[in-house]
Amino acid sequence: MPAHFGPRYIGPGTSGWYHDVTMMIVSYETEREALQQYLPEPLEVAETPLVTVTYACNKQVDWLAGRGYNLIGVSAAVRYAGETEQLEGDYTLVMWENLTDAILSGRELQGIPKIYADIPEHRISSGRWDCSAQHFGSPIVAMSIDELRAPTAEEIAASAAEKAGRDNPIGWRYLPAVGGYGQPRHEITTFPSATTIHEAQVGSGSVNWASLTWEQNPTQFHIVNALAGLPVVAYRPAIVARGSTNLVLPERPTRALK
Amino acid sequence: MPAHFGPRYIGPGTSGWYHDVTMMIVSYETEREALQQYLPEPLEVAETPLVTVTYACNKQVDWLAGRGYNLIGVSAAVRYAGETEQLEGDYTLVMWENLTDAILSGRELQGIPKIYADIPEHRISSGRWDCSAQHFGSPIVAMSIDELRAPTAEEIAASAAEKAGRDNPIGWRYLPAVGGYGQPRHEITTFPSATTIHEAQVGSGSVNWASLTWEQNPTQFHIVNALAGLPVVAYRPAIVARGSTNLVLPERPTRALK
Amino acid sequence: MPAHFGPRYIGPGTSGWYHDVTMMIVSYETEREALQQYLPEPLEVAETPLVTVTYACNKQVDWLAGRGYNLIGVSAAVRYAGETEQLEGDYTLVMWENLTDAILSGRELQGIPKIYADIPEHRISSGRWDCSAQHFGSPIVAMSIDELRAPTAEEIAASAAEKAGRDNPIGWRYLPAVGGYGQPRHEITTFPSATTIHEAQVGSGSVNWASLTWEQNPTQFHIVNALAGLPVVAYRPAIVARGSTNLVLPERPTRALK
Amino acid sequence: MPAHFGPRYIGPGTSGWYHDVTMMIVSYETEREALQQYLPEPLEVAETPLVTVTYACNKQVDWLAGRGYNLIGVSAAVRYAGETEQLEGDYTLVMWENLTDAILSGRELQGIPKIYADIPEHRISSGRWDCSAQHFGSPIVAMSIDELRAPTAEEIAASAAEKAGRDNPIGWRYLPAVGGYGQPRHEITTFPSATTIHEAQVGSGSVNWASLTWEQNPTQFHIVNALAGLPVVAYRPAIVARGSTNLVLPERPTRALK
Repeated sequence: MPAHFGPRYIGPGTSGWYHDVTMMIVSYETEREALQQYLPEPLEVAETPLVTVTYACNKQVDWLAGRGYNLIGVSAAVRYAGETEQLEGDYTLVMWENLTDAILSGRELQGIPKIYADIPEHRISSGRWDCSAQHFGSPIVAMSIDELRAPTAEEIAASAAEKAGRDNPIGWRYLPAVGGYGQPRHEITTFPSATTIHEAQVGSGSVNWASLTWEQNPTQFHIVNALAGLPVVAYRPAIVARGSTNLVLPERPTRALK
Repeated sequence: MPAHFGPRYIGPGTSGWYHDVTMMIVSYETEREALQQYLPEPLEVAETPLVTVTYACNKQVDWLAGRGYNLIGVSAAVRYAGETEQLEGDYTLVMWENLTDAILSGRELQGIPKIYADIPEHRISSGRWDCSAQHFGSPIVAMSIDELRAPTAEEIAASAAEKAGRDNPIGWRYLPAVGGYGQPRHEITTFPSATTIHEAQVGSGSVNWASLTWEQNPTQFHIVNALAGLPVVAYRPAIVARGSTNLVLPERPTRALK
Repeated sequence: MPAHFGPRYIGPGTSGWYHDVTMMIVSYETEREALQQYLPEPLEVAETPLVTVTYACNKQVDWLAGRGYNLIGVSAAVRYAGETEQLEGDYTLVMWENLTDAILSGRELQGIPKIYADIPEHRISSGRWDCSAQHFGSPIVAMSIDELRAPTAEEIAASAAEKAGRDNPIGWRYLPAVGGYGQPRHEITTFPSATTIHEAQVGSGSVNWASLTWEQNPTQFHIVNALAGLPVVAYRPAIVARGSTNLVLPERPTRALK
Repeated sequence: MPAHFGPRYIGPGTSGWYHDVTMMIVSYETEREALQQYLPEPLEVAETPLVTVTYACNKQVDWLAGRGYNLIGVSAAVRYAGETEQLEGDYTLVMWENLTDAILSGRELQGIPKIYADIPEHRISSGRWDCSAQHFGSPIVAMSIDELRAPTAEEIAASAAEKAGRDNPIGWRYLPAVGGYGQPRHEITTFPSATTIHEAQVGSGSVNWASLTWEQNPTQFHIVNALAGLPVVAYRPAIVARGSTNLVLPERPTRALK
């Protein structure tokens, strides 16, 4: 929308490429029941109830004529057990982004639950990486990674093995009826992308969720409080990485799961 | 979205009221054919091919816990000639807002083609009012109203007569299939609201649209250029007004037209 | 600076007027010794060790061609006992503003210790007023006023009496030697202005200072923590008011005290 | 200022280092007389009347706990012919920055004529680099560099030779008397820094200055128009580079020229 002016321009210079992406990734085990309550059917918590918080600083984005934006996404490791399809992947619980243009297409085309936050670029000081999000002048989350070192060969192999067959980002496109009355239209989706990592380090991460009132963040406080309520049972090794990402994979298009 | 955390909070303090709204409204006649090309079926240009640009500075918005936001909306005077329903109203060609939260609910619930822009609060200097919008550091539109005076009794009566029976804001909710492939779902909608004016003045207005390249505003340049291409045949008297607005009218809910 | 392009424009449309100013003012008694440590010689804490936090939302500012900006200033009630001059007034401990242009002229011409913060416009919800400041994504201060009512005749008279003869804003212009080495140049200043109040209400206020680390706000954390360390012994009645202000009083110019 | 809370924190983690700096540099010859009018005595235009526009995207800045900011500075090649000192260098005509904290210390300690602008991070699209500055929603300048290639050995040698003995940034610290009445205090300063370049490319650059009214940018329009009025006689090869910068050189401190 607006649809009457035609679609977004596609031509020389546009593509699905994000040429310069810097990431901070912190994962932690939580409690199975606490996590299950936020999964729509037929999603189930994966073998390990893992929450992953990913910060990405996206630059040289082709569809933005070389501009960029930042995001903080939160996902849960899940199994999709559909009528005709089975899939392991990561279900996006919420994704904050600091650019509305990216939010709109992600929500409406892919079913990614993107919402807005101020997300300053990460900072690096005395070897520690920090990022955070705010909205309406109130904090949402702060994340840091410290004690960075090169990954071992075992860690690289283990990471590849863990991802094998389950690199499937999953969303829930939920579109209400006009005015909110009547049946919503909703579908479980998958939106594959391909990221090439050029450099990566492993460290010790932590995530701090704010506790908010309606007055502080009237449109998102319930989301932040829900995430703050997921217990941190154990942190996994955290990752900082730099690479490039292609969002448009003709052989693996965004689609609704069956 | 995200839907799995439940709906937005509704309770004491929330309502559809915008308690403090300041508006600048500039209308101009354009050419019928130029305007018709942007109207989806079964909308037709009204008897007079009129474009209206409305700036609103919204404060004390209840669903934002008393915060506010600014918008610049562009609409065309139209007739809806549906299978079972006939309606005269104003079709929103595009609405820029500077708060993503308001954009998301407007698009998904009401079908208003809201997109993001930086919209500084209007300024008043030497009796002249000015407002403008920018995105990605590039201008979109600038609007000014000068030579303000109290409306005459005739003008007030004429304005009321002109609006009678055609105070129907109309949108086109257009939701693509997942991934963009397949049939979109689209509906012509109406989203009534009620505004009480406390003070109003009449003046001489003008609207200046930017001419943009893809590089300057890759997601909106085609919209701005389309609006810049609608000839200004004649300006109508412009209006500045202050009042309050209620977006939730139980007896006239947002709905799809038939 | 830059001085080689000549001074700021002065002409038709420019003046010292701020035509639309909305204020929230919360005062509290603190401990004398705690406050005295931040006063440069020859300033002394006034008879009552009073701290005043003032939020102002400035609109229709003539020197900004009708734009505006927001500020949160903190002052201490003081006595100036100079060699040839005695004065009672309010010494500005710090003033956060969200517009650099206003910060520069205030610091360099008047000696007001202005620094930058994000200061969203106040919000009003369920009869309560709130404002706040943030910088680098970290909170600085939040202030609210509740239970508003019209002032009594006694309160108006008492307020006028209290201000009589002590409506003197005081600053300390402190300019280092080039590069920071050598003797600074510093002067105690007074920068009178005149505010006309159009409407005012009295209520119950509170101020909450953040506690910050260097990493959170590397240029201001020591200021915020110092203010947070001033005990709140007792709040005075708080005020919300709307009026207009003139910063340029030919008969009472900004000047250095003697 | 405020001085009564003590100086900015200096300790572990703070230094003069900017660890990650990306630059775009475009120089052009202009007309000698046009440039000379903006130089305070005893500065004179250098042998070649050269204007240099430098964009810098500063990240991992130690005094900001690892945050960053962007700047666009404009300088003129000059000779300083003082009573006891002779110096060739680059006189900063103006420097826009998007962080007030950096503006304040640069103005007051070093005499750099820093002022505020919104400066989005540069974008890179189809091999072309672009940057720009805006303030009050109005454009200031746009700069682009295209056709990038590795520098030749001759170019590297020529660039080093050109800079030898004239890598002296020069400013004019100009501080008015309190209230603006009386004698200002002003000094010509030099503020050396050391930049190590890790990668550099050479290309074809261009600079486009806006033409502004007082209403569009009331505090800076005269500066932008003055720069727009300097004729572009011929562009020099433009540079994009990445490196790191140290602002604090104990052996070459910021100082006033004699």
